[in-house]
Amino acid sequence: MNNRGQLFGIGVGPGDPELLTLKALRLLKAAPVVAYFVAKGKKGNAFSIVESHLDGVQIRLPLVYPVTTEALEPPLSYETIIADFYDTAAAVIGEHLDAGRDVAVVCEGDPFFYGSYMYLHDRLAGQFRVEVVPGVCSMLGGTAVLGTPLVYRNQSLAILSGVMSEDELRSKLAQTDAAVIMKLGRNFAKVRRVLDELGLASRALYVERATMPNQRIVPLALVDPMASPYFSLLVVPGQKWQG
Amino acid sequence: MNNRGQLFGIGVGPGDPELLTLKALRLLKAAPVVAYFVAKGKKGNAFSIVESHLDGVQIRLPLVYPVTTEALEPPLSYETIIADFYDTAAAVIGEHLDAGRDVAVVCEGDPFFYGSYMYLHDRLAGQFRVEVVPGVCSMLGGTAVLGTPLVYRNQSLAILSGVMSEDELRSKLAQTDAAVIMKLGRNFAKVRRVLDELGLASRALYVERATMPNQRIVPLALVDPMASPYFSLLVVPGQKWQG
Repeated sequence: MNNRGQLFGIGVGPGDPELLTLKALRLLKAAPVVAYFVAKGKKGNAFSIVESHLDGVQIRLPLVYPVTTEALEPPLSYETIIADFYDTAAAVIGEHLDAGRDVAVVCEGDPFFYGSYMYLHDRLAGQFRVEVVPGVCSMLGGTAVLGTPLVYRNQSLAILSGVMSEDELRSKLAQTDAAVIMKLGRNFAKVRRVLDELGLASRALYVERATMPNQRIVPLALVDPMASPYFSLLVVPGQKWQG
Repeated sequence: MNNRGQLFGIGVGPGDPELLTLKALRLLKAAPVVAYFVAKGKKGNAFSIVESHLDGVQIRLPLVYPVTTEALEPPLSYETIIADFYDTAAAVIGEHLDAGRDVAVVCEGDPFFYGSYMYLHDRLAGQFRVEVVPGVCSMLGGTAVLGTPLVYRNQSLAILSGVMSEDELRSKLAQTDAAVIMKLGRNFAKVRRVLDELGLASRALYVERATMPNQRIVPLALVDPMASPYFSLLVVPGQKWQG
């Protein structure tokens, strides 16, 4: 048991490689195996963030998503395909750990905040020693570059997904003091409609790929709903408290 | 104008000095003035996190809160006292900036996520060049040490304050997939009652001073409601998605 490797889930921040923590950097440099999720044919955001810190001896372990959309035609099922993928990825990582090699899974943002790492964690944390290193999440990368305080004092904050139905978005946005809406992409037009209805559009701010080299901040009214990427955020900051 | 200093709002993470980002460390070491909020007679969490990285030449600028509770007897008013305090603090920082000295305000967690820095930012960002460096927020420091994934896929997350009324807590907790409740302290008993009513207590996890040397993880049922500190968190993770 003591000769087995340890699993690290390492948050590497929203995109700017300088937003890595000292702890993430130390553990990353020490890890014999560095694993990362990536779409087929891509380099992957998490890997790009850490690449310059790795040496030539460390084993790179890409975990290549078998699908990039959840909208599949039957008999294909996203849930089944992705579960099989995580099973396989966990097994591959488990072999390295059994062989005594520590594995660092690098995660864009924070590992436990909507990260794919969570599915490995749920499969492996019962069997191996595991440590999670928190990271700067994309939401806070976004508010920093937008220059907007997010929540004051005792305000509530709702973190929502553009995938939600229009009714659910409306009811949750109506109840909260501040909100962040992620996973916009093709849901952008729906989200903007709800913000308009609730009179929140004038307070909302929009950013794409916050802290990355190709970051873009665009006034809400000028966003092309057909061109909003997955890594975009809408922020409805809490009302300023004079304090 | 070009000779004026720049203001930096720097997130220094939840407590562990190793959770500082590379960017925070670089800017912190370069800043001629390092300001931090602190209660009278205390050292301050943010300052403790960065202290070992400062040299003897940097000017330390403690911003000492005039009150430590919002519950004051008339004619005293928390709002008035604290607004005066932020006005004065902004003026002192403004003098350094006018004299051409950059000022780094260090903020526990993230500057825009319930941080006192926001009140300085709102007063100074219109007049001076400002940059905000996001940090690892206490909430994600908490989930990392608890070892619990927080939100899966398209789940919603509500960030709530223990200060909220029992009705408001109940209605917001009933509507969300996952929740984090901060500012427990003397509100702990009320919050636990609501979690019990909603059947959420068995899913809830509790941590005090996550990632700090005196961190404590306690089963919810064993928490002494009279002894829960301000820097404690309750986490109700989203239901695991098998994925």
